[in-house]
Amino acid sequence: MAIKRYKITVVGAGFTGATTALMLAQKELGNVVLLDIPQLENPTKGKALDMLEAGPVQKFDSQITGTSDFEDAADSDIVIITAGIARKPGMSRDDLVNTNASIVKSVCENVKRVAPESIVIILSNPVDAMTYVAYNALEFPKNRVIGQSGVLDTARYCTFIAQELNVSVEDVRGFVLGGHGDDMVPLVRYSSVGGIPVDKLIPEERIAEIVQRTRVGGGEIVSLLGNGSAYYAPAASLVQMTEAILKDKKRIIPVIALLEGEYGYDSLFMGVPVLLGANGIEKIYELELTAEEQAALDKSADSVRAVTSAVNV
Amino acid sequence: MAIKRYKITVVGAGFTGATTALMLAQKELGNVVLLDIPQLENPTKGKALDMLEAGPVQKFDSQITGTSDFEDAADSDIVIITAGIARKPGMSRDDLVNTNASIVKSVCENVKRVAPESIVIILSNPVDAMTYVAYNALEFPKNRVIGQSGVLDTARYCTFIAQELNVSVEDVRGFVLGGHGDDMVPLVRYSSVGGIPVDKLIPEERIAEIVQRTRVGGGEIVSLLGNGSAYYAPAASLVQMTEAILKDKKRIIPVIALLEGEYGYDSLFMGVPVLLGANGIEKIYELELTAEEQAALDKSADSVRAVTSAVNV
Amino acid sequence: MAIKRYKITVVGAGFTGATTALMLAQKELGNVVLLDIPQLENPTKGKALDMLEAGPVQKFDSQITGTSDFEDAADSDIVIITAGIARKPGMSRDDLVNTNASIVKSVCENVKRVAPESIVIILSNPVDAMTYVAYNALEFPKNRVIGQSGVLDTARYCTFIAQELNVSVEDVRGFVLGGHGDDMVPLVRYSSVGGIPVDKLIPEERIAEIVQRTRVGGGEIVSLLGNGSAYYAPAASLVQMTEAILKDKKRIIPVIALLEGEYGYDSLFMGVPVLLGANGIEKIYELELTAEEQAALDKSADSVRAVTSAVNV
Amino acid sequence: MAIKRYKITVVGAGFTGATTALMLAQKELGNVVLLDIPQLENPTKGKALDMLEAGPVQKFDSQITGTSDFEDAADSDIVIITAGIARKPGMSRDDLVNTNASIVKSVCENVKRVAPESIVIILSNPVDAMTYVAYNALEFPKNRVIGQSGVLDTARYCTFIAQELNVSVEDVRGFVLGGHGDDMVPLVRYSSVGGIPVDKLIPEERIAEIVQRTRVGGGEIVSLLGNGSAYYAPAASLVQMTEAILKDKKRIIPVIALLEGEYGYDSLFMGVPVLLGANGIEKIYELELTAEEQAALDKSADSVRAVTSAVNV
Repeated sequence: MAIKRYKITVVGAGFTGATTALMLAQKELGNVVLLDIPQLENPTKGKALDMLEAGPVQKFDSQITGTSDFEDAADSDIVIITAGIARKPGMSRDDLVNTNASIVKSVCENVKRVAPESIVIILSNPVDAMTYVAYNALEFPKNRVIGQSGVLDTARYCTFIAQELNVSVEDVRGFVLGGHGDDMVPLVRYSSVGGIPVDKLIPEERIAEIVQRTRVGGGEIVSLLGNGSAYYAPAASLVQMTEAILKDKKRIIPVIALLEGEYGYDSLFMGVPVLLGANGIEKIYELELTAEEQAALDKSADSVRAVTSAVNV
Repeated sequence: MAIKRYKITVVGAGFTGATTALMLAQKELGNVVLLDIPQLENPTKGKALDMLEAGPVQKFDSQITGTSDFEDAADSDIVIITAGIARKPGMSRDDLVNTNASIVKSVCENVKRVAPESIVIILSNPVDAMTYVAYNALEFPKNRVIGQSGVLDTARYCTFIAQELNVSVEDVRGFVLGGHGDDMVPLVRYSSVGGIPVDKLIPEERIAEIVQRTRVGGGEIVSLLGNGSAYYAPAASLVQMTEAILKDKKRIIPVIALLEGEYGYDSLFMGVPVLLGANGIEKIYELELTAEEQAALDKSADSVRAVTSAVNV
Repeated sequence: MAIKRYKITVVGAGFTGATTALMLAQKELGNVVLLDIPQLENPTKGKALDMLEAGPVQKFDSQITGTSDFEDAADSDIVIITAGIARKPGMSRDDLVNTNASIVKSVCENVKRVAPESIVIILSNPVDAMTYVAYNALEFPKNRVIGQSGVLDTARYCTFIAQELNVSVEDVRGFVLGGHGDDMVPLVRYSSVGGIPVDKLIPEERIAEIVQRTRVGGGEIVSLLGNGSAYYAPAASLVQMTEAILKDKKRIIPVIALLEGEYGYDSLFMGVPVLLGANGIEKIYELELTAEEQAALDKSADSVRAVTSAVNV
Repeated sequence: MAIKRYKITVVGAGFTGATTALMLAQKELGNVVLLDIPQLENPTKGKALDMLEAGPVQKFDSQITGTSDFEDAADSDIVIITAGIARKPGMSRDDLVNTNASIVKSVCENVKRVAPESIVIILSNPVDAMTYVAYNALEFPKNRVIGQSGVLDTARYCTFIAQELNVSVEDVRGFVLGGHGDDMVPLVRYSSVGGIPVDKLIPEERIAEIVQRTRVGGGEIVSLLGNGSAYYAPAASLVQMTEAILKDKKRIIPVIALLEGEYGYDSLFMGVPVLLGANGIEKIYELELTAEEQAALDKSADSVRAVTSAVNV
C-alpha cells in the first residue's frame, strides 16, 4: 500500500519556523516535525503542543511534534530550513552570512544523514548564499535544493500594488527575479491587475516607488518590528512551495535555483522562474529580458556572488 | 445590531442553479434560497434538502431552502438568475432569445417587488441580451444589474493554456473581453503563466487554436453532453461574483455591464473589466486596445446588438 | 522519490458519481478519473471538462479525466463505485438488487485487473448487499472493501436535529448503526448537541419522529425529486471516507464492513463504527448495546441478510 | 445597501492578538484592526503589514491594519480583548488580576466610546474576572460581553483524548464547564469519540489523568515555553467565537457568561454552554448535573468568586 501521510520537518522553531508549522498543519499537508536545538527543546515542544490544541477548533487534523532530535526527522519528504539568527535593525542581510552558514551546514549534514531522499527548502538568510551552502553540504541533486525568495518578494510587490489601487490582491499578478536583496528585479512589464497591465493603472513614478519599496520590503518590517524580522509572509511562502511539491502541482513560480548557464550565469544560486512539482525543480524558465532588465539582473547576480564568496565554512 | 446572515436567492433550480446553491453553501456566504416554478416545487425542495444534508459531512453550515414562492426571496441581498431553457446541440445561443427573455422578464418583475434593494446577476442565455432584458424589467441602477460571461470564458481559456503546458492552472492568467458568443475576444497580449507571457511559451498557431476553442467552449460541452449545457464552471463563476460583492472585495474581473460611452459603445450590455464590490459594478475599466483588438470587439458588439435587437418582450 | 498525486477513480458518472468527482477535485485529494460505460463516454468527458474549467474559478488544481476505458483507472489508490440504476419512486431499495449486482460484479472484475492494490468504496444500492458482491468479485482483503451508509445516515439524522432546535449543525453529534434500510438504528443515547444529550433538548416523541424520518431519509429525497435519488449528501459522504483513507486520518466513523463475529454476526456486511485510515478499515469497534438496541440491530441484520441472499449473480 | 465588510478589532498585539488577527484574516471574516499601546505602534504596524503580505500567498483577501489609535476601531462589529500581561512560569493565573483589570477597564472605556454597538470577547487573564471587569466598564447588555475559556479547555481535552487513542481529533467530542482555572469541570459523561462514550474506550484512571492534564493545560504550555503562555489554541478559540457571531451560526459552545440564577449562581461570570449567534449570547443552557458534578462546579464557582472579589479597580 502506497498511501501514507507525508512528513515535513521544519528546522528552526523561531517565529518563522513555528508559523510555517502552523500553516502546514492548517493545510493538512502531512505530519509536521518542528525541530530546534536541545537548549530550546521545551519551548519547541510547547509551541507544537499549543498548535496541536488549535486543531479541534480550526478543524485541522495533523500531527505536530516538537523535538531537538534529528532522528525524529527521519525519512522526511520535505525539510524546510529556517534556522539562523535574525537580522537586527540596521544590520544588512549580508552581515549574517558566516554565522548562518555554519548553522545551515550543520543542519544539512544531519538532514543528509536522516532524510537522504528529501527535498530541502531554505529560508535562512542571506538566502541565496545559504542555498549554496546547503547544496554543498547536502550533496543532493540540484533539483532537490531550493531557496525561497521570489514568492515572498512577489507577494510584497502585489500587496503594494493592491494597496495603491485599493483593489483585491487576488487579481494582482507580479513577478520578481534575481537575488533576495536590494537589487532584486521586479518585472513591471509582466505585472497586471485583473489582466490590465500595471503601467496602465499606476503612474510611472509611483510604480518606481513601489518597486523600491518591494526591494527593501524585508527591511521595512525589520524597522517596524524593532526586534526581529518578518515571519508571516515568509512562512506562507514556504508553505506554498511545499504544497506545490507534495501535490505535484507543476507550478511556475520564482525560487532560488542553481543556474548552470541559464540567463548567462554559471554555478550561481539565484531567483528565477521554475516548474515546481514532485521532483522539486523540474525545469528552469528563461525569460527574454530587455537590456535594462538584464543589466539589473547582472547587478543582482553580482550582489549574490559577493555574498556567496564571503561564505567561509 | 448590524450583524446578519446575507440572503442569496438562486432563480432556476436546474443543474446550474442547483450547483450554484451548493457552492454558495460550501462557502457559507449566507442563507440560500433555491427557487423554481410551482410545477418543480418538490424537486427543488428535494435538491435543497439533499444539499443541506451534505452540510454536516462537508462541514458547512448554511441554510438552503427550496421553494416556488417569491415571497421566500424577500429582501435578498443578491439574486442570481439562471432560469431559462438550455441550449440544445446544434441550437445557437441566439435561438433562445425570446423564450428566455419572457422568463427573465417575469422573474425580474418578481425580484423588483420582493427584493428591490438587491444586486442581480444574470446567467440566462443569451446572456448579453438577457442582462439588457433584466435591466429594463428591474429598473434598478446600472451598477446593480450584472451579467456573467467573462469569468467563465476566462476560466476556460486558462484551463486550455494550463493543459497545453501541463502546468498548474493557478499560475495562468488570461482575460476575455466582449460578448459571450463566438466573437468573444481573448486578449492574448495580456495572458501569462507564472508571469511569463503566453506567447513566449506557446507557438502562435497553437494559441490561435486555444483562442478558437475558448470561443466555442460552451458549445464543446454541449456537444459532449449531448443533452444540456455546462453547469459546473458557470456555477463557480456566479459564486465568485457573489463572493466579490458580499465580501466587498473590489475585484477587477470581466462582467457584462451597461456601457454608456465606454469603449465607444452606447446603451450596450457587453463584457468588460469592472471593479466589483459591495455596490456591484463600482467602476468600468477601459483598456487601450490595438486596432485589431478593437475591430474584434466591434464585431462582438455587433453580434450582441443583433441578438439584443431580436428581443421582443 | 515517493511523492506523487494520488489517483481516485469514480465509477459511474451519474449525478452521484459526478458530484463525488467535483468534491474530490475541490479538496485536491488527487487526480480524479470519472468512468462510465462506452455509450456514455462523451457525456462523461463533458462533465469532467466542465468541472476542470471550474478549477481556476474555485481555485482548485486537480486533474479530472472522463473516460469509458478501465485502463485509465490503472493503479488507482481508491476506487469509488457509484454505478447502478437509481431507485425510482415507489421502488424499494431491495428491488434493485440483481440488476445492480451484475453491474457491480462486472465493475469489480475490471478493478481487480487494473487496480489490484486499491481500496474500494461502494455506494451502489442496496449497498449492504452490493458491498458483499464487490467483496466476492474483488477477492481483496476485507479491510479494502468498504460500503458507505452510516456517514450519510448520520448526516441526515444530525441535520434533522439541528433543524428541530434551530442550531448549527456543527455542534450536533449522532450515530447510526446497522443496515442502510428502514431498519437502521440511530443510537439516540449517543447523540448530543454541543455536548448536551439530545433527550435533554428534544421531547421523546419528537426524537422518535426524527429517528423515523432518518430511516426513510433516502426515500424522502426520492419522493421529492420524483425522478432519481439523493446525490449531494451521498457524494459528500464518499469524499469524507476517501479523505480519511488518503490522509490516514484514523477516523472513527460508521461504514459497512465485513463482520466475522463482531456484534454476534458472521459473514455479514453491515454498518458499524470502524477506524478508517491508510489501510482502509483498520479496526471494528463493538459498542455495548442495550437489549432494545441489540434487538433493533438484529432486525436490521435480518433485513440485510434477506437482501443479500437475494443476490444471484 | 446593507452589504459591507465586518470590522473586527483585536486589542493587544502580542502573540495571541497577532495570531488571532492572522486567523481572522485567513477566514476573510472582515477587516481586521490590530491595536496596541502607542509605545508598540510600530511593531503592531509591522505585524499587520507582514500578515497582509501573506495574503497573496495564502489566497486570503482581508484588510489588516496596525494601530495604536482607538479611533481606528470606530464602529467595530466585534472587539476582541487580549491585552494584559502574560502569566510567567510559577505565577498563578490569579496573580495577574489587578494589573490586568486596570488594563481591561481602560480598554473597555475606549471601546464603549468608539464602538458602542459592538460585541466584546475577552481573553485577558484571569478571564472569568476580566469578563466581569469588562462588563462593568462597558455597561453593555450581558449578551454582548463574552469571555473565552470553554472552547480552549474543550480543545485541549479533545486533543489529549485523540492522542491517547491515536485517532483523529475530528471525531472527539468533549465539554468543559466552569471557571478557566484548575477547578474547571470536564464532563466525562458527555464525552465521546465517533459517538462511542469515552469511558468505553479509555480506562477510568487514564481518563482521570486526562481530566487533570486538561485542568492544568495552560500551565503545561507555560512551563514548556519558559517565557510566555499559549497563543495558537487561544487565538483559534477566539476566532471560532467571532465566526459564530458574524455568521449568526447559532452554535452551542461553552463561553463565560453572566449567570443570573442559572445553575444556582447569581451575578457570576463563569463558563457555561450558550447559544452563540448574531446577538452574542442568545441563550444559556442549563445542564442537569450529578451531585458530584454540581459539587465540582460549586468549587469552581468559589474559585471564580475569590478571584473576582480580588478585583479592585
